[in-house]
Amino acid sequence: MLAFDRSEYDTRLERTKTSMQAHGIEVLLCHDTANMNYLTGYDGWSFYTPQCVVVALDLDEPLWIGRGIDGNGARVTTYLKEENIYPYGDDFVQTPLKHPMNFAADVLKARGLDRGTVGLEMDSYYFSPAGYEALKGDLPNSTFINAEALVNWVRCIKSPAELELMQQAATILEKVMAVAFEQVTPGNRQCDAAAAIYQAGISGTPEYGGDYTAIVPMLPTGAGTATPHLTWSDEVFKKGEATILELAGCRKRYHCPQARTVFIGKPPKKLANAASWVVEGIEAAFDFIKPGVTAEEVERVWRDTIAKHGLIKESRCGYSTGLNYPPDWGEHTISLRPGDTTVLQPNMTIHFMPGIWMDDWGIEISECFRVTETGCEPLANTPRELILKD
Amino acid sequence: MLAFDRSEYDTRLERTKTSMQAHGIEVLLCHDTANMNYLTGYDGWSFYTPQCVVVALDLDEPLWIGRGIDGNGARVTTYLKEENIYPYGDDFVQTPLKHPMNFAADVLKARGLDRGTVGLEMDSYYFSPAGYEALKGDLPNSTFINAEALVNWVRCIKSPAELELMQQAATILEKVMAVAFEQVTPGNRQCDAAAAIYQAGISGTPEYGGDYTAIVPMLPTGAGTATPHLTWSDEVFKKGEATILELAGCRKRYHCPQARTVFIGKPPKKLANAASWVVEGIEAAFDFIKPGVTAEEVERVWRDTIAKHGLIKESRCGYSTGLNYPPDWGEHTISLRPGDTTVLQPNMTIHFMPGIWMDDWGIEISECFRVTETGCEPLANTPRELILKD
Repeated sequence: MLAFDRSEYDTRLERTKTSMQAHGIEVLLCHDTANMNYLTGYDGWSFYTPQCVVVALDLDEPLWIGRGIDGNGARVTTYLKEENIYPYGDDFVQTPLKHPMNFAADVLKARGLDRGTVGLEMDSYYFSPAGYEALKGDLPNSTFINAEALVNWVRCIKSPAELELMQQAATILEKVMAVAFEQVTPGNRQCDAAAAIYQAGISGTPEYGGDYTAIVPMLPTGAGTATPHLTWSDEVFKKGEATILELAGCRKRYHCPQARTVFIGKPPKKLANAASWVVEGIEAAFDFIKPGVTAEEVERVWRDTIAKHGLIKESRCGYSTGLNYPPDWGEHTISLRPGDTTVLQPNMTIHFMPGIWMDDWGIEISECFRVTETGCEPLANTPRELILKD
Repeated sequence: MLAFDRSEYDTRLERTKTSMQAHGIEVLLCHDTANMNYLTGYDGWSFYTPQCVVVALDLDEPLWIGRGIDGNGARVTTYLKEENIYPYGDDFVQTPLKHPMNFAADVLKARGLDRGTVGLEMDSYYFSPAGYEALKGDLPNSTFINAEALVNWVRCIKSPAELELMQQAATILEKVMAVAFEQVTPGNRQCDAAAAIYQAGISGTPEYGGDYTAIVPMLPTGAGTATPHLTWSDEVFKKGEATILELAGCRKRYHCPQARTVFIGKPPKKLANAASWVVEGIEAAFDFIKPGVTAEEVERVWRDTIAKHGLIKESRCGYSTGLNYPPDWGEHTISLRPGDTTVLQPNMTIHFMPGIWMDDWGIEISECFRVTETGCEPLANTPRELILKD
């Protein structure tokens, strides 16, 4: 069931170990669900109980540690040998009496990995303070350091096989967006639009089925467009209102996200103007992007372009994306914003996401792009404009 | 946009404060997304950046702390006064330079809440060790204690208004299950079945639309039934194979989960037998359940009933459920398992989930039930049996 050739996982592990050595880390605990998948292939909706993958400089293979009933999932979805799969008993699940990280500490001891420098993903979603305290308490001879985003940074540059999955996700996204444009129509309930969006995205295409996206479809409407993360309601779409669609296609956990804004009727001048300025800003940034420029330089080009029209956006205008699990399809590495001096390189994939949210209205038009050898190219092909409906 | 009358939130806050006093907690930080919603109404897919709700014995209202671009979401979805909404700048987002919990610490200082005993949800999904370290570092005069699941326990007993939403979720679930039974048919791709399941669940009914579920549809098939948390693939359903459906209906974040197992063709004897024994175990447990019995006693009745047939299940056979967000619809309080001495009370809602997972096969037939004044009743009405298809 591996999504990639075994050699691809070997390369990922080698790069991770190289980075570990550079950071003085002998043992790395990955709680990040995407990192667990990236390193071993592990895939399952089991991250609601603590689990992790351990990479040690001294071991050929990572170790998988997770709940007992998910051990078979590790056997089915990873390349790991049986001896490297460590399922814990159900008496560790959701109880104040003991923590799965107590079990993980015992695994480290059993494998002789309890004496060196241990890297932890200190800001990972599914690594809790209770788990952290359990590790610290049980491993007095280890030195813990924050290895935050170490594997995430390895994930930044995509392989050809990863790009192929993202391109398939883009094809799914194009279908999803077309359905969404149809669905935003007066009298249709938001929940019915969301249902059709899900249907299109999960079904995918006849060649390749869709996967669940790391963020649910967002479709804030009317005054809701001033806030980006509201989900749908039972209300119907109305003439004279805007709807922001922030959606993605997903293929084998790889995402292609995109946002568009739909207006039913004749749009107010401020919205039509903002749309054309945002598109102008995206295109200026895309003309500028090529290997060697920095993340903050890209943001500056965007910022300067829209500033000519008096438009200001405070939040970052993009982030790295690709493989992920809920609650985020962002990779938590590159952010297009002042102070991020990451140098862009070929096959980085970034969601250029210049959302504008004012007090009582907002607009989003975004593109997921790949850095090429000489510039950049969007992954999906959707009309880049304010979408108008009757 | 509140899902409940304001008085319901007042009652919740009062009960939470009573429990805080009993635990010696003056200030409580809730990172749990469901707890944030429960206490304030806050609803949005914004939990991928750190956020929390603060309850202080000395304050009339909770405080909301979250990302700047989600401040409008808090204004729209909660009853909180403007002065109690604290949005942080985007320079706090996903950067090693500073953490949103540094901002939260400043809020506590500004409100004079930095000198007492602070309760933290130490095992909450979206509270990270980095956030914990930031709070500890910035609040040297606070004493931190683990308030794990304090609000979750308040959530255990549902109000009439909450039960109404769960009953609506049950109606949506019945529709979802009927669609799922249709979809598990030879030659249909798993992804197309998942797409139809989503469509049915999100669209809901003409009276009330559906919401996204905290766990995606699970439909492990064939040998995959030995592992409960695999999601779908592009493979087609085949004659002679079982498929486990673990699904839910969701209404305004309230869930009614349920599992059924479908077999295409004539089922092997071991599966047909296991199905009837599991149903027998559920029915024995349901006959036994009433206010006053304990969680572990319920599990014992189940265990003894199936043991007569030589069937053994090691993992817990149920848990409290209701309001929730990804990645789990469980409430992390009551578990039906040995050692859990929680006394069942009227209007607790529990997913009785006696999944059996063997080496190369498995079966799930489950029910979400409510404890009544005199016994219990399942929320949904779906045939409780092994579902057979041609």
